[in-house]
Amino acid sequence: MTKRQKLSDEAVGAFLDGHPGWERATNPDGTGALARTFSFPSYPAAIAFVVGVGFAAEARDHHPDLHVGWRRVRVVWWTHDAAGKDGGSESPGGITAVDLEMADRTDALAR
Amino acid sequence: MTKRQKLSDEAVGAFLDGHPGWERATNPDGTGALARTFSFPSYPAAIAFVVGVGFAAEARDHHPDLHVGWRRVRVVWWTHDAAGKDGGSESPGGITAVDLEMADRTDALAR
Repeated sequence: MTKRQKLSDEAVGAFLDGHPGWERATNPDGTGALARTFSFPSYPAAIAFVVGVGFAAEARDHHPDLHVGWRRVRVVWWTHDAAGKDGGSESPGGITAVDLEMADRTDALAR
Repeated sequence: MTKRQKLSDEAVGAFLDGHPGWERATNPDGTGALARTFSFPSYPAAIAFVVGVGFAAEARDHHPDLHVGWRRVRVVWWTHDAAGKDGGSESPGGITAVDLEMADRTDALAR
């Protein structure tokens, strides 16, 4: 199976332009990611959002990091084994098309 | 209402001795906390655990930070407005009796 390719900075920038609230982030291991913090009117609403994102993630077999606090959830999407733009193995991991797809879906779940 | 008092190092140490897996942690703002990372056989099991902890947190009106990854959840308990041992306001926040209670409950939910 072909590994998912990391997106260009331009492709990620175009996504960010159209999706307010999302930002570039860096994982502890240095890989690039997409992140957004969502706020909710209640703690149960935040937990319900986590469940929704969890179902979407499992269905797509692509799982984010979720940081759940009081009435807020930070969602971080990235692809751990993304291939470099040349298909090589330099700095594996980063933002791929599936991350944009899931970030878009995350927004839909929060609405 | 009297603010919850920070526990002594000895009290926290006694809890840790009896609760394998829990460790002292430090929040980004420097306050002390109790943390444990739980692993699960499936991602849905991890999300179900989050829901269980969420319900317990809301019922007790005491909410942890939850860091949810693939098949694992890190739970961090602390009391944001805990008073110092002298009742003063130096370094607010830390580990109180309610954190031990909730950590113990968290273990029960993971069993």
